[in-house]
Amino acid sequence: MKILGIDPGLRITGFGVIHKQGNQLTYIASGTIRTPDGDLPQRLKTILTSLGEVVQTYRPDCAAIEKVFVNVNPQSTLLLGQARGAAICALVAADLMVAEYTALQVKKAVVGHGKAQKTQVQEMVQRLLKLPGAPGPDAADALGVAICHANNSDVLGILGGLAPALAKRGLRVRGGRLVG
Amino acid sequence: MKILGIDPGLRITGFGVIHKQGNQLTYIASGTIRTPDGDLPQRLKTILTSLGEVVQTYRPDCAAIEKVFVNVNPQSTLLLGQARGAAICALVAADLMVAEYTALQVKKAVVGHGKAQKTQVQEMVQRLLKLPGAPGPDAADALGVAICHANNSDVLGILGGLAPALAKRGLRVRGGRLVG
Repeated sequence: MKILGIDPGLRITGFGVIHKQGNQLTYIASGTIRTPDGDLPQRLKTILTSLGEVVQTYRPDCAAIEKVFVNVNPQSTLLLGQARGAAICALVAADLMVAEYTALQVKKAVVGHGKAQKTQVQEMVQRLLKLPGAPGPDAADALGVAICHANNSDVLGILGGLAPALAKRGLRVRGGRLVG
Repeated sequence: MKILGIDPGLRITGFGVIHKQGNQLTYIASGTIRTPDGDLPQRLKTILTSLGEVVQTYRPDCAAIEKVFVNVNPQSTLLLGQARGAAICALVAADLMVAEYTALQVKKAVVGHGKAQKTQVQEMVQRLLKLPGAPGPDAADALGVAICHANNSDVLGILGGLAPALAKRGLRVRGGRLVG
């Protein structure tokens, strides 16, 4: 399974592609999409088309994107929201399923606790994917999102596989819990 | 010139298409795109693809979208931003130029002052476009954005036409002002 992870931003959008086979994670690619200052619609177009090219190039099986947190400056929150919307559009336009994870979930998955610094995420991503050097902070975050989804998709996959048997007993899985 | 106006929203996105010939504005179409509650990426996909269909159907020459204002609830601001980002993506994906107007600019263009109520916008849109009945509030806002752009594009067109002559004198128009 090939997973595309995204760390969205208006100025810099990080992306990372990993391959998961059993418990083995392999690095495929990572990088950043940068938009110059200027007209918002044109910046969103850059995110949409560049991320579309990433999808066309690496043909991931699924995607995951970091949930962004609300900025103290509401205008920045609005801009970040629009950038994240454009990134999600590039993914859903290619019919990819898109999972969402908070920064806390990503840090826990990569470093083991939610209070990790950016450099710790970079170091752990380097170690987990056996990279020769630490990736840049945006690419590392994107690879972290992909790693987080790789761990999570195990559980989701098992639960998904159980679904038919559960349905026979009038049960289903919702939000990771069994409901009647 | 065919103009597509958009009033963006996560739950309801209004759209309106008008034709402008000289000073004459003609109604072509309007409507709303609604997204059911649920998974955010899927909701953004609905906005992206439905608005993409509107563009394919009416083939506008340009587009204009309302600037949204920051909500008291930052989480709502973030959601609205993502919805607006998806709407802009549908426009730029079709290589449309996208103009942006505040609600104040739209109200001034349609009603004549910035303190107009929603119903006044609906009534004036009905009158200006000679419609048999008032359009719904979201479609009316979208048509209002298109009307605002129709008025504004006159000025922009004149300034655009002057650009080569100005350039010869080392001048250009920026943000509606002459700069050296």
